Amino acid sequence: MALAAGMRVRARALLRAGARLRGAALGRPEPAAGGGDGARRFTNLRVLVEPDPAAGVAVMKLKNPPVNSLSLELLTELVISLEKLENDKAFRGVVLTSDRPGVFSAGLDLTEMCGRNPAHYAEYWKAVQELWLRLFLSNMVLVAAINGACPAGGCLMALTCDFRVLASNPKFAIGLNETLLGIVAPFWFKDTLVNTIGHRASEHALQLGLLFPPAEALQVGIVDQVVPEDQVQSTALSVMARWMAIPDHARQLTKAMMRKATADRLIKQRDADIQNFVSFISRDSIQKSLQTYLEKLKQKKG
Amino acid sequence: MALAAGMRVRARALLRAGARLRGAALGRPEPAAGGGDGARRFTNLRVLVEPDPAAGVAVMKLKNPPVNSLSLELLTELVISLEKLENDKAFRGVVLTSDRPGVFSAGLDLTEMCGRNPAHYAEYWKAVQELWLRLFLSNMVLVAAINGACPAGGCLMALTCDFRVLASNPKFAIGLNETLLGIVAPFWFKDTLVNTIGHRASEHALQLGLLFPPAEALQVGIVDQVVPEDQVQSTALSVMARWMAIPDHARQLTKAMMRKATADRLIKQRDADIQNFVSFISRDSIQKSLQTYLEKLKQKKG
Amino acid sequence: MALAAGMRVRARALLRAGARLRGAALGRPEPAAGGGDGARRFTNLRVLVEPDPAAGVAVMKLKNPPVNSLSLELLTELVISLEKLENDKAFRGVVLTSDRPGVFSAGLDLTEMCGRNPAHYAEYWKAVQELWLRLFLSNMVLVAAINGACPAGGCLMALTCDFRVLASNPKFAIGLNETLLGIVAPFWFKDTLVNTIGHRASEHALQLGLLFPPAEALQVGIVDQVVPEDQVQSTALSVMARWMAIPDHARQLTKAMMRKATADRLIKQRDADIQNFVSFISRDSIQKSLQTYLEKLKQKKG
Repeated sequence: MALAAGMRVRARALLRAGARLRGAALGRPEPAAGGGDGARRFTNLRVLVEPDPAAGVAVMKLKNPPVNSLSLELLTELVISLEKLENDKAFRGVVLTSDRPGVFSAGLDLTEMCGRNPAHYAEYWKAVQELWLRLFLSNMVLVAAINGACPAGGCLMALTCDFRVLASNPKFAIGLNETLLGIVAPFWFKDTLVNTIGHRASEHALQLGLLFPPAEALQVGIVDQVVPEDQVQSTALSVMARWMAIPDHARQLTKAMMRKATADRLIKQRDADIQNFVSFISRDSIQKSLQTYLEKLKQKKG
Repeated sequence: MALAAGMRVRARALLRAGARLRGAALGRPEPAAGGGDGARRFTNLRVLVEPDPAAGVAVMKLKNPPVNSLSLELLTELVISLEKLENDKAFRGVVLTSDRPGVFSAGLDLTEMCGRNPAHYAEYWKAVQELWLRLFLSNMVLVAAINGACPAGGCLMALTCDFRVLASNPKFAIGLNETLLGIVAPFWFKDTLVNTIGHRASEHALQLGLLFPPAEALQVGIVDQVVPEDQVQSTALSVMARWMAIPDHARQLTKAMMRKATADRLIKQRDADIQNFVSFISRDSIQKSLQTYLEKLKQKKG
Repeated sequence: MALAAGMRVRARALLRAGARLRGAALGRPEPAAGGGDGARRFTNLRVLVEPDPAAGVAVMKLKNPPVNSLSLELLTELVISLEKLENDKAFRGVVLTSDRPGVFSAGLDLTEMCGRNPAHYAEYWKAVQELWLRLFLSNMVLVAAINGACPAGGCLMALTCDFRVLASNPKFAIGLNETLLGIVAPFWFKDTLVNTIGHRASEHALQLGLLFPPAEALQVGIVDQVVPEDQVQSTALSVMARWMAIPDHARQLTKAMMRKATADRLIKQRDADIQNFVSFISRDSIQKSLQTYLEKLKQKKG
């Protein structure tokens, strides 16, 4: 047996950043507590939180039609929802899933990165960073119940969880496919992937923008379990029960020990990372690529 | 073909530390050389060394009933035994196993960490560090013949070896299960595991305190081979023969190149690591946990 | 979706180094452009380049009988050939293979490291470093079509590629087998292997000098695909087509992001690495080993 005093996640600094983000980003009051089943239930516009205080678990469902794009508003609501649960001692675990089976999340919202001004790009990127830090360093157990397609930013969210359950539908592929759009996953996306599937598989997957269907996803290790579509959430809750059996303090210190170095790489250069993003996304060539891509998407729908 | 001058392990500094440890820890004379088959045979009280100078190999058997707990005395005898073999040019390889099939080692000795004073905790932790450094940086080939249960500190010892053979008995699980007791594996336990099974499998195993039965142990890579119980030692000796066929100097430089960075992380902060341990283990909450656990163990026996 | 401004490979600095190397090493004019199928075709003495500008791909064949040893001249021609293709916008991908099926490359040339003077050793080692840096940091897609035995330096070349296809002939083993000759793979050989197959498999393989036959090579991940001998090159070209479908800029930034840290470790200490090599190889004991080994090789042939 062995033990050691672990490291502490700078929770307070993160909370302050979250507060600033919330105010600056939307300038609107906090979502009202709502719902009919007790004081703890609260429904945001784009994040549906279904609490089970007896079990200590909340199911958090993304609800941003049509494809759960990570708009600035969704990012902000996600951070607020996580913060609330993190600060409520009744909750020790969160199952992250989609309210719309078929799409877990399509990832970052292209319309936030196209035809806006640099200040907007900077605000948006800061919100993306904030969500990643919140999820990646959460003291709660996070289990992803991936009940739909899970590319790019959707995959990033899943990778921050402690365990990933994917529906066996071969249409539901998962991966960081940024290069297919002519763009590049930032280093902290890459680090999260390398931690999960190793260096070689990451180099291969990131260069080719690979999206892994369920069987391949399980084999490469980007998900931990594949189950029939109608069992994704129940399996996630069973997995959660096993994790909840571990003493919180020891588990949290262990998680922080495993993740601190990776998180610190971004924390130490958040501003530079934002500047990099703004400078990259503002290029004419990138703006044109995104514009073309968005127009194609519109034509498909029309 | 390629070559390079490797790096040198600071053997002398380690030896000095070992000498200090030996004197300070027990204040008793070195175990007498003994046995009936030549000057090299020596038997400690808790470490049985069976030398085969012709083969250049010694079998080192843990003998600390009932479960080979790593008491301060056992740690000290292990370090002394390793040092003797390391300094004897006749020996190039060690098979590490248990004299009591059924338990390889239960790991650290809880009675050394419970109800004692800070000076004792510090002395104990330093001895744990010393054993890890000796094993991990050994110039000899180390093969673990795991003929019994191998949790926590027992697993750590096995992980320092160059090759691990585990008996196929499904009761003989191996892993770093510290979180199950409400405690946390220190960073150098973690680093040793990450080197062996990778980042993701380690994060999963350490958070849940997983103990892998043989088939799973082989699959995750925490052991290299699984064989029937009565073939563990003979297989270990066969594996050893293969390793002994490699020129020592090249093998040693290669091993040092692979392990130096990991060892240096602890060497550079041994004192801080001891202080962390003492501070953590001295907490009332931790002492109460350990006390409760020890009383349960006593009741089981009674 | 996510994006970020990547890092830039110091291409210009590398090119300058290449120019110096070329001049210093051989003091001979550049190989003449030749061949009958257009201005781009050029044949060196030891590197046969078969360009397909329409596809944007060149097949580069090692031709240094009898075993494609990496002599100083072959190293220099390889660097020159790569530089030409890298600077020619018509080429985005290179298939690296052997003109002599049966041996991909036997690795470094022992005669360059035996019975020469320190200045020669330094010049040779600098050329080895240069080839590794060129291959490892190439902006082009590199696919290894391994149509023969691939030990040591041959394996290193293959490991720098983006994808490795190995012929299924069980005689064609691949690995870094330096310890078998009593020498040690330098840290950047080791780093390249660890990136590919992970820490534990590398520690095992490097200490024992393992050469993996095709089935094992695929399992450990040191190659990506194994196909019948007569399909190695066609498979490599099919793989290449898939990689060529990715936008260059995004793929190049992603590759640089994955590899920069590893390359920088050598770039920051090239001179020290050369000094290490010269000092190691100049030792009497090493020279004697190499001399003995070379004489055995001669007797075999005679």
